[in-house]
Amino acid sequence: MIIARILGTVVASQKDERLHGKKLLIVKPINLDGTDQSGYIVAVDTVGAGFHEKVLVVAGSSARLAEGNKDCPVDSAIIGVIDSFEVNSES
Amino acid sequence: MIIARILGTVVASQKDERLHGKKLLIVKPINLDGTDQSGYIVAVDTVGAGFHEKVLVVAGSSARLAEGNKDCPVDSAIIGVIDSFEVNSES
Amino acid sequence: MIIARILGTVVASQKDERLHGKKLLIVKPINLDGTDQSGYIVAVDTVGAGFHEKVLVVAGSSARLAEGNKDCPVDSAIIGVIDSFEVNSES
Amino acid sequence: MIIARILGTVVASQKDERLHGKKLLIVKPINLDGTDQSGYIVAVDTVGAGFHEKVLVVAGSSARLAEGNKDCPVDSAIIGVIDSFEVNSES
Amino acid sequence: MIIARILGTVVASQKDERLHGKKLLIVKPINLDGTDQSGYIVAVDTVGAGFHEKVLVVAGSSARLAEGNKDCPVDSAIIGVIDSFEVNSES
Repeated sequence: MIIARILGTVVASQKDERLHGKKLLIVKPINLDGTDQSGYIVAVDTVGAGFHEKVLVVAGSSARLAEGNKDCPVDSAIIGVIDSFEVNSES
Repeated sequence: MIIARILGTVVASQKDERLHGKKLLIVKPINLDGTDQSGYIVAVDTVGAGFHEKVLVVAGSSARLAEGNKDCPVDSAIIGVIDSFEVNSES
Repeated sequence: MIIARILGTVVASQKDERLHGKKLLIVKPINLDGTDQSGYIVAVDTVGAGFHEKVLVVAGSSARLAEGNKDCPVDSAIIGVIDSFEVNSES
Repeated sequence: MIIARILGTVVASQKDERLHGKKLLIVKPINLDGTDQSGYIVAVDTVGAGFHEKVLVVAGSSARLAEGNKDCPVDSAIIGVIDSFEVNSES
Repeated sequence: MIIARILGTVVASQKDERLHGKKLLIVKPINLDGTDQSGYIVAVDTVGAGFHEKVLVVAGSSARLAEGNKDCPVDSAIIGVIDSFEVNSES
Protein backbone atom coordinates (compact mmCIF):
# COMPACT_ATOMS: atom_id res chain seq x y z
CA MET A 1 0.00 0.00 0.00
CA ILE A 2 1.03 3.61 -0.24
CA ILE A 3 0.39 6.75 1.74
CA ALA A 4 -1.33 9.54 -0.17
CA ARG A 5 -3.21 12.73 0.42
CA ILE A 6 -6.57 13.63 -1.06
CA LEU A 7 -6.29 16.21 -3.79
CA GLY A 8 -9.60 16.40 -5.62
CA THR A 9 -12.61 14.71 -7.13
CA VAL A 10 -13.62 13.23 -10.48
CA VAL A 11 -17.12 13.60 -11.89
CA ALA A 12 -18.22 11.10 -14.53
CA SER A 13 -21.89 10.65 -15.35
CA GLN A 14 -21.43 8.22 -18.25
CA LYS A 15 -19.72 5.22 -16.63
CA ASP A 16 -19.78 1.54 -15.82
CA GLU A 17 -22.91 0.87 -13.82
CA ARG A 18 -20.97 -0.70 -10.98
CA LEU A 19 -19.30 2.67 -10.42
CA HIS A 20 -22.60 4.39 -9.64
CA GLY A 21 -22.61 5.76 -6.14
CA LYS A 22 -18.85 5.38 -5.79
CA LYS A 23 -16.86 8.42 -4.70
CA LEU A 24 -13.90 8.83 -7.05
CA LEU A 25 -11.09 10.81 -5.46
CA ILE A 26 -7.82 12.05 -6.90
CA VAL A 27 -5.01 11.22 -4.51
CA LYS A 28 -1.34 12.09 -4.59
CA PRO A 29 1.25 9.68 -3.21
CA ILE A 30 3.49 11.31 -0.62
CA ASN A 31 6.99 10.66 0.62
CA LEU A 32 7.75 9.80 4.22
CA ASP A 33 8.84 13.40 4.88
CA GLY A 34 5.36 14.57 3.85
CA THR A 35 6.34 16.00 0.46
CA ASP A 36 4.44 15.08 -2.68
CA GLN A 37 5.54 12.43 -5.10
CA SER A 38 4.95 13.02 -8.79
CA GLY A 39 1.86 11.60 -10.40
CA TYR A 40 -1.60 10.86 -9.04
CA ILE A 41 -4.13 8.06 -8.78
CA VAL A 42 -7.91 8.02 -9.04
CA ALA A 43 -9.13 5.83 -6.18
CA VAL A 44 -12.53 4.82 -4.84
CA ASP A 45 -13.06 6.08 -1.31
CA THR A 46 -14.38 3.26 0.86
CA VAL A 47 -13.85 4.77 4.32
CA GLY A 48 -15.35 8.26 4.14
CA ALA A 49 -12.07 10.13 4.01
CA GLY A 50 -12.08 13.92 4.08
CA PHE A 51 -10.02 16.50 2.22
CA HIS A 52 -6.56 17.22 3.59
CA GLU A 53 -6.46 13.79 5.21
CA LYS A 54 -3.65 11.34 4.66
CA VAL A 55 -4.94 8.00 3.51
CA LEU A 56 -3.84 4.45 2.89
CA VAL A 57 -4.34 3.34 -0.72
CA VAL A 58 -4.39 -0.23 -2.03
CA ALA A 59 -3.81 -1.05 -5.70
CA GLY A 60 -4.52 -3.91 -8.06
CA SER A 61 -7.03 -6.71 -7.63
CA SER A 62 -7.04 -6.17 -3.86
CA ALA A 63 -8.88 -2.88 -4.41
CA ARG A 64 -11.91 -5.04 -5.18
CA LEU A 65 -11.70 -6.55 -1.70
CA ALA A 66 -12.28 -3.16 -0.08
CA GLU A 67 -15.72 -2.63 1.42
CA GLY A 68 -18.37 -2.25 -1.29
CA ASN A 69 -16.02 -2.86 -4.25
CA LYS A 70 -16.80 -6.54 -4.89
CA ASP A 71 -16.83 -7.22 -8.64
CA CYS A 72 -16.30 -3.54 -9.43
CA PRO A 73 -13.93 -2.54 -12.24
CA VAL A 74 -11.60 -0.58 -9.96
CA ASP A 75 -7.86 -0.91 -9.42
CA SER A 76 -7.30 1.52 -6.56
CA ALA A 77 -9.14 2.13 -3.28
CA ILE A 78 -8.76 4.20 -0.14
CA ILE A 79 -8.92 1.74 2.75
CA GLY A 80 -7.87 3.80 5.74
CA VAL A 81 -7.45 7.30 7.14
CA ILE A 82 -3.98 7.65 8.59
CA ASP A 83 -3.77 9.11 12.09
CA SER A 84 0.00 9.11 12.10
CA PHE A 85 3.01 7.30 10.80
CA GLU A 86 6.35 7.05 12.46
CA VAL A 87 9.73 6.48 10.90
CA ASN A 88 12.53 5.18 13.09
CA SER A 89 15.13 7.93 12.88
CA GLU A 90 17.99 5.57 13.62
CA SER A 91 17.17 3.23 10.81
CA MET B 1 -7.41 4.40 -12.17
CA ILE B 2 -5.96 7.10 -14.34
CA ILE B 3 -7.31 9.95 -16.40
CA ALA B 4 -6.51 9.77 -20.11
CA ARG B 5 -7.61 11.22 -23.40
CA ILE B 6 -8.52 9.27 -26.49
CA LEU B 7 -5.88 9.48 -29.16
CA GLY B 8 -6.62 6.88 -31.81
CA THR B 9 -7.72 3.42 -32.77
CA VAL B 10 -6.14 0.02 -33.37
CA VAL B 11 -7.28 -2.31 -36.15
CA ALA B 12 -6.46 -6.01 -35.78
CA SER B 13 -8.29 -8.60 -37.83
CA GLN B 14 -6.25 -11.63 -36.69
CA LYS B 15 -6.86 -11.75 -32.96
CA ASP B 16 -8.12 -13.68 -29.96
CA GLU B 17 -11.75 -14.52 -30.61
CA ARG B 18 -12.89 -12.91 -27.39
CA LEU B 19 -11.65 -9.58 -28.74
CA HIS B 20 -14.06 -9.67 -31.68
CA GLY B 21 -16.43 -6.76 -31.57
CA LYS B 22 -14.34 -4.93 -28.98
CA LYS B 23 -13.35 -1.35 -29.72
CA LEU B 24 -9.62 -0.97 -29.12
CA LEU B 25 -8.65 2.64 -28.45
CA ILE B 26 -5.26 4.23 -27.96
CA VAL B 27 -5.37 6.49 -24.92
CA LYS B 28 -2.80 8.83 -23.49
CA PRO B 29 -2.56 9.38 -19.74
CA ILE B 30 -2.76 13.05 -18.79
CA ASN B 31 -1.55 15.10 -15.88
CA LEU B 32 -3.90 17.02 -13.62
CA ASP B 33 -3.06 20.27 -15.45
CA GLY B 34 -4.35 18.71 -18.66
CA THR B 35 -0.95 18.13 -20.29
CA ASP B 36 0.02 14.77 -21.74
CA GLN B 37 2.07 12.21 -19.93
CA SER B 38 4.54 10.15 -21.93
CA GLY B 39 3.51 6.76 -23.18
CA TYR B 40 0.15 5.35 -24.18
CA ILE B 41 -2.16 2.43 -23.47
CA VAL B 42 -4.41 0.36 -25.72
CA ALA B 43 -7.70 -0.01 -23.83
CA VAL B 44 -11.07 -1.58 -24.60
CA ASP B 45 -13.81 1.02 -24.68
CA THR B 46 -16.77 -0.20 -22.62
CA VAL B 47 -18.75 3.04 -22.30
CA GLY B 48 -18.98 4.43 -25.83
CA ALA B 49 -16.45 7.21 -25.38
CA GLY B 50 -15.87 9.69 -28.21
CA PHE B 51 -12.73 11.31 -29.55
CA HIS B 52 -11.39 14.28 -27.63
CA GLU B 53 -13.10 13.05 -24.47
CA LYS B 54 -11.30 12.57 -21.21
CA VAL B 55 -11.84 9.11 -19.84
CA LEU B 56 -11.28 7.02 -16.75
CA VAL B 57 -9.10 3.96 -17.41
CA VAL B 58 -8.78 0.89 -15.19
CA ALA B 59 -5.80 -1.47 -15.47
CA GLY B 60 -4.99 -5.05 -14.53
CA SER B 61 -7.40 -7.85 -13.74
CA SER B 62 -10.13 -5.33 -12.91
CA ALA B 63 -10.34 -4.45 -16.61
CA ARG B 64 -12.09 -7.81 -16.99
CA LEU B 65 -14.80 -6.65 -14.60
CA ALA B 66 -15.80 -3.83 -16.93
CA GLU B 67 -19.05 -4.32 -18.82
CA GLY B 68 -18.67 -6.98 -21.52
CA ASN B 69 -15.07 -7.92 -20.68
CA LYS B 70 -15.72 -11.04 -18.60
CA ASP B 71 -13.06 -13.68 -19.33
CA CYS B 72 -11.49 -11.50 -22.07
CA PRO B 73 -7.70 -11.30 -22.36
CA VAL B 74 -7.57 -7.56 -21.72
CA ASP B 75 -5.62 -5.58 -19.14
CA SER B 76 -6.98 -2.08 -19.68
CA ALA B 77 -10.50 -0.70 -20.12
CA ILE B 78 -12.24 2.65 -20.42
CA ILE B 79 -14.90 2.66 -17.70
CA GLY B 80 -16.11 6.25 -17.67
CA VAL B 81 -16.29 9.52 -19.56
CA ILE B 82 -15.07 12.31 -17.34
CA ASP B 83 -17.28 15.39 -17.16
CA SER B 84 -14.86 17.28 -14.97
CA PHE B 85 -12.27 16.85 -12.32
CA GLU B 86 -11.40 19.33 -9.64
CA VAL B 87 -8.15 19.75 -7.76
CA ASN B 88 -8.20 21.58 -4.46
CA SER B 89 -5.88 24.54 -5.06
CA GLU B 90 -4.98 24.89 -1.41
CA SER B 91 -3.82 21.34 -1.04
CA MET C 1 -2.38 -3.53 -23.76
CA ILE C 2 0.64 -2.32 -25.64
CA ILE C 3 1.79 -2.36 -29.24
CA ALA C 4 5.02 -4.24 -29.86
CA ARG C 5 7.03 -5.74 -32.68
CA ILE C 6 8.41 -9.24 -32.77
CA LEU C 7 12.14 -9.34 -32.28
CA GLY C 8 13.19 -12.92 -31.64
CA THR C 9 12.61 -16.25 -30.00
CA VAL C 10 13.49 -17.99 -26.77
CA VAL C 11 14.43 -21.67 -26.59
CA ALA C 12 14.07 -23.42 -23.23
CA SER C 13 13.98 -27.20 -23.03
CA GLN C 14 13.94 -27.47 -19.22
CA LYS C 15 10.73 -25.69 -18.26
CA ASP C 16 7.36 -25.82 -16.54
CA GLU C 17 5.36 -28.56 -18.22
CA ARG C 18 2.50 -26.23 -19.02
CA LEU C 19 4.88 -24.25 -21.25
CA HIS C 20 5.49 -27.23 -23.53
CA GLY C 21 4.38 -26.45 -27.05
CA LYS C 22 4.10 -22.74 -26.35
CA LYS C 23 5.90 -20.37 -28.69
CA LEU C 24 7.91 -17.90 -26.62
CA LEU C 25 8.65 -14.71 -28.53
CA ILE C 26 10.75 -11.70 -27.60
CA VAL C 27 8.79 -8.55 -28.34
CA LYS C 28 9.78 -4.93 -28.15
CA PRO C 29 7.23 -2.28 -27.17
CA ILE C 30 7.02 0.52 -29.71
CA ASN C 31 5.99 4.15 -29.58
CA LEU C 32 3.11 5.50 -31.62
CA ASP C 33 5.57 6.95 -34.16
CA GLY C 34 6.88 3.44 -34.78
CA THR C 35 10.17 3.81 -32.94
CA ASP C 36 11.31 1.30 -30.36
CA GLN C 37 10.83 1.75 -26.65
CA SER C 38 13.56 0.51 -24.35
CA GLY C 39 13.27 -2.93 -22.84
CA TYR C 40 11.59 -6.09 -24.06
CA ILE C 41 9.08 -8.71 -22.98
CA VAL C 42 8.96 -12.47 -23.48
CA ALA C 43 5.38 -13.26 -24.50
CA VAL C 44 3.51 -16.41 -25.51
CA ASP C 45 2.24 -16.16 -29.06
CA THR C 46 -1.42 -17.24 -29.19
CA VAL C 47 -2.38 -15.96 -32.64
CA GLY C 48 0.34 -17.22 -34.97
CA ALA C 49 2.10 -13.90 -35.44
CA GLY C 50 5.02 -13.65 -37.87
CA PHE C 51 8.30 -11.81 -37.72
CA HIS C 52 8.24 -8.11 -38.54
CA GLU C 53 4.58 -7.94 -37.58
CA LYS C 54 3.22 -5.47 -35.08
CA VAL C 55 1.29 -7.16 -32.37
CA LEU C 56 -1.02 -6.44 -29.45
CA VAL C 57 0.36 -7.69 -26.14
CA VAL C 58 -1.60 -8.22 -22.92
CA ALA C 59 0.12 -8.42 -19.52
CA GLY C 60 -0.66 -9.77 -16.08
CA SER C 61 -3.28 -12.32 -15.11
CA SER C 62 -5.23 -11.58 -18.30
CA ALA C 63 -2.47 -13.26 -20.31
CA ARG C 64 -3.87 -16.51 -18.93
CA LEU C 65 -7.21 -15.74 -20.57
CA ALA C 66 -5.64 -15.78 -24.03
CA GLU C 67 -6.42 -18.83 -26.15
CA GLY C 68 -4.60 -21.91 -24.84
CA ASN C 69 -3.06 -20.22 -21.79
CA LYS C 70 -5.56 -21.34 -19.14
CA ASP C 71 -3.73 -22.14 -15.87
CA CYS C 72 -0.33 -21.53 -17.51
CA PRO C 73 2.36 -19.68 -15.57
CA VAL C 74 2.60 -16.83 -18.07
CA ASP C 75 2.28 -13.10 -17.57
CA SER C 76 2.39 -11.84 -21.14
CA ALA C 77 0.69 -12.96 -24.35
CA ILE C 78 0.36 -11.85 -27.95
CA ILE C 79 -3.38 -11.61 -28.60
CA GLY C 80 -3.58 -9.88 -31.97
CA VAL C 81 -1.73 -8.96 -35.15
CA ILE C 82 -2.13 -5.26 -35.79
CA ASP C 83 -3.18 -4.29 -39.30
CA SER C 84 -2.91 -0.60 -38.60
CA PHE C 85 -3.28 1.97 -35.91
CA GLU C 86 -4.29 5.54 -36.35
CA VAL C 87 -3.54 8.53 -34.18
CA ASN C 88 -5.70 11.59 -34.48
CA SER C 89 -3.29 14.28 -35.57
CA GLU C 90 -5.37 17.08 -34.10
CA SER C 91 -5.50 15.60 -30.66
CA MET D 1 9.61 -10.64 -4.05
CA ILE D 2 11.95 -7.96 -2.82
CA ILE D 3 14.25 -7.53 0.13
CA ALA D 4 13.43 -4.61 2.39
CA ARG D 5 14.17 -3.30 5.85
CA ILE D 6 11.58 -2.19 8.36
CA LEU D 7 11.47 1.55 8.76
CA GLY D 8 8.37 2.45 10.73
CA THR D 9 4.71 1.99 11.50
CA VAL D 10 1.39 3.36 10.30
CA VAL D 11 -1.50 4.06 12.67
CA ALA D 12 -4.99 4.24 11.17
CA SER D 13 -8.06 3.93 13.39
CA GLN D 14 -10.65 4.60 10.67
CA LYS D 15 -10.10 1.76 8.20
CA ASP D 16 -11.53 -1.21 6.35
CA GLU D 17 -12.73 -3.68 8.98
CA ARG D 18 -10.60 -6.48 7.54
CA LEU D 19 -7.52 -4.43 8.44
CA HIS D 20 -8.35 -4.49 12.15
CA GLY D 21 -5.63 -6.21 14.11
CA LYS D 22 -3.20 -6.08 11.20
CA LYS D 23 0.23 -4.58 11.82
CA LEU D 24 1.00 -2.07 9.09
CA LEU D 25 4.70 -1.49 8.66
CA ILE D 26 6.61 0.93 6.47
CA VAL D 27 9.38 -0.92 4.68
CA LYS D 28 12.14 0.33 2.43
CA PRO D 29 13.40 -1.80 -0.45
CA ILE D 30 17.16 -2.29 -0.32
CA ASN D 31 19.81 -3.04 -2.90
CA LEU D 32 21.96 -6.16 -2.77
CA ASP D 33 24.84 -4.13 -1.28
CA GLY D 34 22.58 -3.22 1.63
CA THR D 35 21.96 0.40 0.63
CA ASP D 36 18.46 1.83 0.48
CA GLN D 37 16.44 2.10 -2.68
CA SER D 38 14.22 5.14 -3.12
CA GLY D 39 10.59 4.91 -2.15
CA TYR D 40 8.78 2.84 0.44
CA ILE D 41 5.90 0.40 0.78
CA VAL D 42 3.30 -0.08 3.50
CA ALA D 43 3.07 -3.83 4.08
CA VAL D 44 1.15 -6.07 6.46
CA ASP D 45 3.48 -7.98 8.76
CA THR D 46 2.47 -11.65 8.83
CA VAL D 47 5.58 -13.16 10.44
CA GLY D 48 6.25 -11.02 13.52
CA ALA D 49 9.23 -9.17 12.11
CA GLY D 50 11.14 -6.78 14.33
CA PHE D 51 12.68 -3.40 13.70
CA HIS D 52 16.09 -3.35 12.00
CA GLU D 53 15.37 -6.75 10.46
CA LYS D 54 15.63 -7.44 6.75
CA VAL D 55 12.46 -8.95 5.41
CA LEU D 56 11.03 -10.58 2.32
CA VAL D 57 8.07 -8.70 0.86
CA VAL D 58 5.51 -10.03 -1.60
CA ALA D 59 3.35 -7.71 -3.71
CA GLY D 60 0.10 -7.91 -5.61
CA SER D 61 -2.68 -10.46 -5.22
CA SER D 62 -0.23 -12.93 -3.66
CA ALA D 63 -0.10 -10.71 -0.57
CA ARG D 64 -3.57 -12.06 0.19
CA LEU D 65 -2.18 -15.59 0.30
CA ALA D 66 0.06 -14.72 3.24
CA GLU D 67 -1.02 -16.08 6.60
CA GLY D 68 -4.11 -14.27 7.88
CA ASN D 69 -4.61 -12.04 4.82
CA LYS D 70 -7.32 -14.05 3.05
CA ASP D 71 -9.84 -11.71 1.43
CA CYS D 72 -8.11 -8.66 2.93
CA PRO D 73 -7.72 -5.51 0.81
CA VAL D 74 -3.92 -5.55 0.96
CA ASP D 75 -1.36 -5.54 -1.84
CA SER D 76 1.88 -6.02 0.10
CA ALA D 77 2.90 -8.39 2.90
CA ILE D 78 6.00 -9.32 4.85
CA ILE D 79 6.33 -13.10 4.49
CA GLY D 80 9.77 -13.82 5.91
CA VAL D 81 12.59 -12.54 8.06
CA ILE D 82 15.85 -12.80 6.15
CA ASP D 83 18.75 -14.43 7.98
CA SER D 84 21.18 -13.80 5.18
CA PHE D 85 21.46 -13.47 1.47
CA GLU D 86 24.44 -14.30 -0.62
CA VAL D 87 25.45 -12.94 -3.99
CA ASN D 88 27.86 -14.90 -6.11
CA SER D 89 30.80 -12.55 -6.51
CA GLU D 90 31.89 -14.09 -9.78
CA SER D 91 28.57 -13.64 -11.48
CA MET E 1 8.14 -12.84 -18.73
CA ILE E 2 11.70 -11.62 -18.53
CA ILE E 3 15.11 -13.15 -19.02
CA ALA E 4 17.35 -13.10 -15.96
CA ARG E 5 20.49 -14.71 -14.61
CA ILE E 6 20.85 -16.32 -11.22
CA LEU E 7 22.86 -14.23 -8.83
CA GLY E 8 22.46 -15.64 -5.35
CA THR E 9 20.30 -17.12 -2.65
CA VAL E 10 18.16 -15.92 0.23
CA VAL E 11 18.00 -17.73 3.57
CA ALA E 12 14.99 -17.09 5.78
CA SER E 13 14.14 -19.45 8.62
CA GLN E 14 11.22 -17.44 10.04
CA LYS E 15 8.74 -17.34 7.18
CA ASP E 16 5.24 -18.12 5.91
CA GLU E 17 4.76 -21.87 6.23
CA ARG E 18 3.91 -22.24 2.57
CA LEU E 19 7.43 -21.08 1.75
CA HIS E 20 9.03 -24.01 3.57
CA GLY E 21 11.07 -26.11 1.18
CA LYS E 22 11.01 -23.44 -1.51
CA LYS E 23 14.31 -22.37 -3.01
CA LEU E 24 14.48 -18.58 -3.02
CA LEU E 25 16.92 -17.25 -5.60
CA ILE E 26 18.08 -13.73 -6.32
CA VAL E 27 17.91 -13.11 -10.05
CA LYS E 28 19.02 -10.17 -12.12
CA PRO E 29 17.09 -9.18 -15.26
CA ILE E 30 19.34 -8.95 -18.30
CA ASN E 31 19.19 -7.07 -21.56
CA LEU E 32 19.09 -8.80 -24.91
CA ASP E 33 22.81 -8.11 -25.41
CA GLY E 34 23.50 -10.07 -22.23
CA THR E 35 24.33 -7.11 -20.01
CA ASP E 36 22.70 -6.67 -16.62
CA GLN E 37 19.72 -4.48 -16.00
CA SER E 38 19.54 -2.58 -12.73
CA GLY E 39 17.65 -4.07 -9.83
CA TYR E 40 16.95 -7.64 -8.84
CA ILE E 41 14.08 -9.96 -7.98
CA VAL E 42 13.73 -12.74 -5.42
CA ALA E 43 12.04 -15.62 -7.24
CA VAL E 44 11.06 -19.16 -6.30
CA ASP E 45 12.93 -21.71 -8.40
CA THR E 46 10.51 -24.30 -9.74
CA VAL E 47 12.68 -25.96 -12.40
CA GLY E 48 15.96 -26.76 -10.65
CA ALA E 49 18.00 -24.02 -12.28
CA GLY E 50 21.72 -23.80 -11.59
CA PHE E 51 24.04 -20.89 -10.98
CA HIS E 52 25.24 -19.00 -14.06
CA GLU E 53 22.20 -20.16 -15.99
CA LYS E 54 19.88 -17.80 -17.80
CA VAL E 55 16.31 -18.31 -16.75
CA LEU E 56 12.78 -17.32 -17.66
CA VAL E 57 10.97 -15.51 -14.84
CA VAL E 58 7.23 -14.96 -14.51
CA ALA E 59 5.78 -12.27 -12.26
CA GLY E 60 2.49 -11.52 -10.57
CA SER E 61 -0.35 -13.93 -9.85
CA SER E 62 0.88 -16.27 -12.58
CA ALA E 63 3.88 -17.14 -10.39
CA ARG E 64 1.39 -19.14 -8.32
CA LEU E 65 0.60 -21.27 -11.37
CA ALA E 66 4.18 -22.52 -11.57
CA GLU E 67 4.75 -26.09 -10.44
CA GLY E 68 4.40 -26.41 -6.66
CA ASN E 69 3.42 -22.77 -6.02
CA LYS E 70 -0.37 -23.21 -5.76
CA ASP E 71 -1.76 -20.90 -3.05
CA CYS E 72 1.76 -19.77 -2.07
CA PRO E 73 2.35 -16.11 -1.25
CA VAL E 74 4.87 -15.61 -4.06
CA ASP E 75 4.92 -13.06 -6.87
CA SER E 76 7.88 -14.28 -8.92
CA ALA E 77 8.97 -17.70 -10.13
CA ILE E 78 11.64 -19.23 -12.34
CA ILE E 79 9.75 -21.34 -14.89
CA GLY E 80 12.42 -22.27 -17.41
CA VAL E 81 16.13 -22.59 -18.08
CA ILE E 82 16.99 -20.78 -21.29
CA ASP E 83 19.11 -22.71 -23.79
CA SER E 84 19.36 -19.79 -26.15
CA PHE E 85 17.56 -16.78 -27.39
CA GLU E 86 17.85 -15.25 -30.79
CA VAL E 87 17.22 -11.69 -31.86
CA ASN E 88 16.58 -10.95 -35.49
CA SER E 89 19.41 -8.64 -36.46
CA GLU E 90 17.45 -7.01 -39.26
CA SER E 91 14.54 -6.03 -37.11
